[in-house]
Amino acid sequence: MILVNGTPAESIPATDRGFAYGDGVFRTLRAVNGEPLHWRKQFNKLADDCVRLGITCPPATALLAEVRTVAEAQGTQAVVKVIITRGSGARGYATRGRLAPLRAVGGSPLTRVPHAHEGIRAHLCRLRLSHQPALAGVKHLNRLENVLARAEWHDEQIREGLLLDQQGLAIGGTMSNLFVVEGKKLITPQLDQCGVAGVTRARVIAHAERLAIVCRVEPVPLQRLLEADEVFFVNSLIGVWPMAQLDKRTWSPGPMARDIRHALAAEDAALA
Amino acid sequence: MILVNGTPAESIPATDRGFAYGDGVFRTLRAVNGEPLHWRKQFNKLADDCVRLGITCPPATALLAEVRTVAEAQGTQAVVKVIITRGSGARGYATRGRLAPLRAVGGSPLTRVPHAHEGIRAHLCRLRLSHQPALAGVKHLNRLENVLARAEWHDEQIREGLLLDQQGLAIGGTMSNLFVVEGKKLITPQLDQCGVAGVTRARVIAHAERLAIVCRVEPVPLQRLLEADEVFFVNSLIGVWPMAQLDKRTWSPGPMARDIRHALAAEDAALA
Repeated sequence: MILVNGTPAESIPATDRGFAYGDGVFRTLRAVNGEPLHWRKQFNKLADDCVRLGITCPPATALLAEVRTVAEAQGTQAVVKVIITRGSGARGYATRGRLAPLRAVGGSPLTRVPHAHEGIRAHLCRLRLSHQPALAGVKHLNRLENVLARAEWHDEQIREGLLLDQQGLAIGGTMSNLFVVEGKKLITPQLDQCGVAGVTRARVIAHAERLAIVCRVEPVPLQRLLEADEVFFVNSLIGVWPMAQLDKRTWSPGPMARDIRHALAAEDAALA
Repeated sequence: MILVNGTPAESIPATDRGFAYGDGVFRTLRAVNGEPLHWRKQFNKLADDCVRLGITCPPATALLAEVRTVAEAQGTQAVVKVIITRGSGARGYATRGRLAPLRAVGGSPLTRVPHAHEGIRAHLCRLRLSHQPALAGVKHLNRLENVLARAEWHDEQIREGLLLDQQGLAIGGTMSNLFVVEGKKLITPQLDQCGVAGVTRARVIAHAERLAIVCRVEPVPLQRLLEADEVFFVNSLIGVWPMAQLDKRTWSPGPMARDIRHALAAEDAALA
């Protein structure tokens, strides 16, 4: 089920700038029993991303009602995707005044997400992320880099791709954020030049503070990642995926990924 | 009028990857009396861009019939926009096998394009284009950089924005390619790191060869552009726009832009 501007629909206007230019932002979130998890954080991030692009974000209450409607239609567990675009306009990059934004809220079933315990195999992507500070951190609809990176492998045993930037710094997974562990310290890459700063990444940083774990936002060259004691990916759907293998380097599931996974899961359970 | 997969429609599926990720390519071209100008070049560029993204390009004959249909509906002069996306898929960046691509072919009136003689004022964009060799040259649907750059000015007397890359090299306009003139030589920026290599740019390069004008593809630092004898923008709709003013620097309309404009126009007239 998809609601387009609040109405059940299977299509969007062919003149929408999300379609023409990727001129919009999105969120993918989990819902349990019709209730989106971490809604306030998800909405705030959506609103922040709209500000970055100069798009008028729809009000939280209207959006929440639509998220609940599509989530309930899925049953107990749902994935909800929210897309906000700048709206429909005439041909050309220019807009005159603020357009009426379009919102598309769609639900799909949450497929069981395993791999949390034993860890996952990852592919080191050949595609390198470009630097664009004007868009860095924003979950916008210009995702061709992710599409091309994800197309690099077909082995279904490989669950995620590790993305480096053009300087060789590790930035994240194709669909997730990244943490590395050095001793008792947690490090997550800087995302001021590229990458998406996800809600779960922010939650992990907050949890670390609460658990008195040192957590730093720093550059993570590939070599630093390879020498790390643990590496894990996070997002709203998978929670925490420890990296078990990247090319020839292997890791055993470690205590930090486990502790963070438990902390996130406990918070989710309390909300759901 | 818009044809979506050959059928008149005002919308596209909400699950289309062009909408979700900007996962597609496009062309904007001129048509006269229902006939697209430079169709073979336009189609070849579309097909090349599809190859770059691993998208199955629809056959030229089917596409040409649709282009003619929407162009005819506009009358004598038309702008036709062709969008090809990877098609609809399940949530997530991955695709299983080749999807059925979507094509959207839309027509709009050609608004009179002046400014060829006296030249135009341009804005020096603050946004700097990022380097992404995997996408450089391709006219793909990830156009947020162009959207943000075009949003930098509201003065309608300013007709184009000059885009630099992150090293300060001039790359093009927000919707056009760029040439600079040094004495009797023509120079157009390298587009192996960013920018779109348009059909009119290729035509200008070919014309230069025919007219025995030296034309080089080289890096054009901003300072080199400012010191050039002439600067002009080109695309399929505007033809040639000489740059008359960029910030405080002004140029008088020069002979090279005029000659190239005449050569392009003569070719267009012979086709139309």
